[in-house]
Amino acid sequence: VSPLRAALVAVGDELLAGEKVNGNGALLGEQLAATGIPVRAQLVVGDDIDDIAAAVRYAAALAPVVIVCGGLGPTQDDLTREGLALAVGVPLERDPALEQALRERFAALGRTDVPAMNWRQADLPRGATPMANPAGSAPGLLLPFGDRVIYALPGVPRELTALWHAAVAPDLRRRYPSRPVVLRSTLRTVGLWESAVAAALEPEVRRTAGSPQVAFLASGGETRVVVTATGADLAAAQALAAPTLAFARQALGEAVYDGPSLQAEVIALLIAAGATVACAESLTAGMVAARLADVAGASAALRGGVVAYATDLKARLLQVPAAVLAAHGPVSEPTARAMAIGVAASCSATYGLALTGVAGPQHQDGHPPGTVHLAVAGPAGVLTRALTVPGDRAAVRGLATTAALALLRTALRRAGATAT
Amino acid sequence: VSPLRAALVAVGDELLAGEKVNGNGALLGEQLAATGIPVRAQLVVGDDIDDIAAAVRYAAALAPVVIVCGGLGPTQDDLTREGLALAVGVPLERDPALEQALRERFAALGRTDVPAMNWRQADLPRGATPMANPAGSAPGLLLPFGDRVIYALPGVPRELTALWHAAVAPDLRRRYPSRPVVLRSTLRTVGLWESAVAAALEPEVRRTAGSPQVAFLASGGETRVVVTATGADLAAAQALAAPTLAFARQALGEAVYDGPSLQAEVIALLIAAGATVACAESLTAGMVAARLADVAGASAALRGGVVAYATDLKARLLQVPAAVLAAHGPVSEPTARAMAIGVAASCSATYGLALTGVAGPQHQDGHPPGTVHLAVAGPAGVLTRALTVPGDRAAVRGLATTAALALLRTALRRAGATAT
Repeated sequence: VSPLRAALVAVGDELLAGEKVNGNGALLGEQLAATGIPVRAQLVVGDDIDDIAAAVRYAAALAPVVIVCGGLGPTQDDLTREGLALAVGVPLERDPALEQALRERFAALGRTDVPAMNWRQADLPRGATPMANPAGSAPGLLLPFGDRVIYALPGVPRELTALWHAAVAPDLRRRYPSRPVVLRSTLRTVGLWESAVAAALEPEVRRTAGSPQVAFLASGGETRVVVTATGADLAAAQALAAPTLAFARQALGEAVYDGPSLQAEVIALLIAAGATVACAESLTAGMVAARLADVAGASAALRGGVVAYATDLKARLLQVPAAVLAAHGPVSEPTARAMAIGVAASCSATYGLALTGVAGPQHQDGHPPGTVHLAVAGPAGVLTRALTVPGDRAAVRGLATTAALALLRTALRRAGATAT
Repeated sequence: VSPLRAALVAVGDELLAGEKVNGNGALLGEQLAATGIPVRAQLVVGDDIDDIAAAVRYAAALAPVVIVCGGLGPTQDDLTREGLALAVGVPLERDPALEQALRERFAALGRTDVPAMNWRQADLPRGATPMANPAGSAPGLLLPFGDRVIYALPGVPRELTALWHAAVAPDLRRRYPSRPVVLRSTLRTVGLWESAVAAALEPEVRRTAGSPQVAFLASGGETRVVVTATGADLAAAQALAAPTLAFARQALGEAVYDGPSLQAEVIALLIAAGATVACAESLTAGMVAARLADVAGASAALRGGVVAYATDLKARLLQVPAAVLAAHGPVSEPTARAMAIGVAASCSATYGLALTGVAGPQHQDGHPPGTVHLAVAGPAGVLTRALTVPGDRAAVRGLATTAALALLRTALRRAGATAT
């Protein structure tokens, strides 16, 4: 079974210079994976007509569906229209309907004439169809190329997402109504090393011998199990993946979490338990509360918190006893414990979640960077965890944040909460 | 002048499926740009020997320097070694020194035998030289390919960065001691739309006629001016860029900020003024304090803060008068003002920085998502700003964070602070 695949081309000097990560590649990859069309390759090229054209031709040789993003704006470095025309071997032509739309857009802004450079946004490679942009001014375009199809989308993620849903996904469904599918299913785990996850699944990996395929992905304190199943249609792929997913769930037990993210699962567990949380943060300085607030609707469970970056604020705002700070120092298990109890009290939350530690690059109070103490205070008492986290300042803070959320999750599950 | 260029290949199914963004592409792009070797293209391919080999050959056709990252681990889906051997047309051979290193590494972990799959990490394409990894277990490798050179690095960003500095950058300096340079210089601005920045620089863009090249990049509430100058050597490129950079600095005035990031400049301004800051956050729930704490050494200026996500905590922890909350509601200029004054007092900080608003997706108290009120309280009084921010929940919170840091910067500059 050879599934339909896609290849992506992102355009922009700033991506090559590392001033911006290619988030659109990930965004489109996720959308395409969810429709059963895996991405075979991503390319990034600069604002250069020849390089754009060569990348589009390479992409079209790799996959029948090509999605190009970026370079559709009005400025002189927006060259995707020209690159596509060169790749396909057609001229650029001004589209009267797009010209009219431009005139109307500027008239609506109270301007009688369109700036000269903006007319370029009315140009299309011959044979292309414009796709209306529901979220911005740059239209997308659809360009047939032999038995391939090229979609070009604006680089602004919000506009790209809007055009994907409004135009690209529906066109793909019409164009390829029935087709082989590659289904990628992910189980997320926290609290286990990648090697431990791999060892737990070894018998199943041996049994499946690559169908479905099982891969492990460690990142940011989490390990994901990715099961990839190919089938003649969606039902066949699902049937192939199901036993492996069931095996993994059984073998990994409590380490598996559901929901789109760890913070989403924690918020769901809190809401299910009718509980709330407040955070007392030192080295993470707000990252834990901010990650919980990523979840739409977090206000039902997140009370707030205190960032006690300066040591004296741990005493003043979190009621950490002076004797504890004097005897154990700010980076210690007793201080984390007192911070958790203090923040739950001062914010009237069911649970207090506290972090103290050393982000680096300097030692602090004799402790090396990566030293982290976590505590969760709740109705059943206080749960603490000490860890030594590898990496630089950003990595230490990120891993400490994930570990803190995982500890809160453990406390909630021990208390009997179940996310619904 | 045709400068030396590089092409990057990242390997990993998880990148194609959008489970991870290609941060290594940005990381290497930035390092290469800083050494005057611009990246011509990035490619991402999956864990597939043929696709890796094809991507490496395509990259080598585009640029004399090829850097491959990822796929060097011990598991069955780490196939970069095999892909490189196929691309270059040489066999894989087990390296006795790497075998010995593996034995020693596992012995140091107290294990008498090396797991069977780990031996693969001792394999090298014929002609390759291993590069010791100062930060992890997977060695990198250097593989000559005709007049091209291929470097393969592990995908873990920390290990990749360590190997870049320890092995790749020194080897590039030795290999290409004197060469044409493309110098990319960036001026960062806050508080101006991209179109306003472009309009201010229009005369200079006309004058330079592409040499140096001037581009504008708007992202996350900031607009960057990127000046790209090509020269026979570094000094020539610098001389070409200098007048344009001077023009931009003059034309954009206070909007330009220096330092690696807005938060770094704010911390530097605070330290120079002998001042401190505390943050009172609602919709951002800790993001502003966390961003300030990104800066190593932030503890000299960041006291801490309060996350008052629940409305009652605005009164309880930040002393926002009940009358203000009753009359104006939590999302209002008077509440932001009172939060800023309250947090400066409770945290004993020179400046209090406050944010309140609606992240969405739901309306709150009749205000639509994107409604944001900012306030800075300091020795000279209170500065406020109201804004309406476009985008989804994540975008609103990100732009509100940037706008808050920009407002604090304005207050500090008006008070006469200069970063040194």
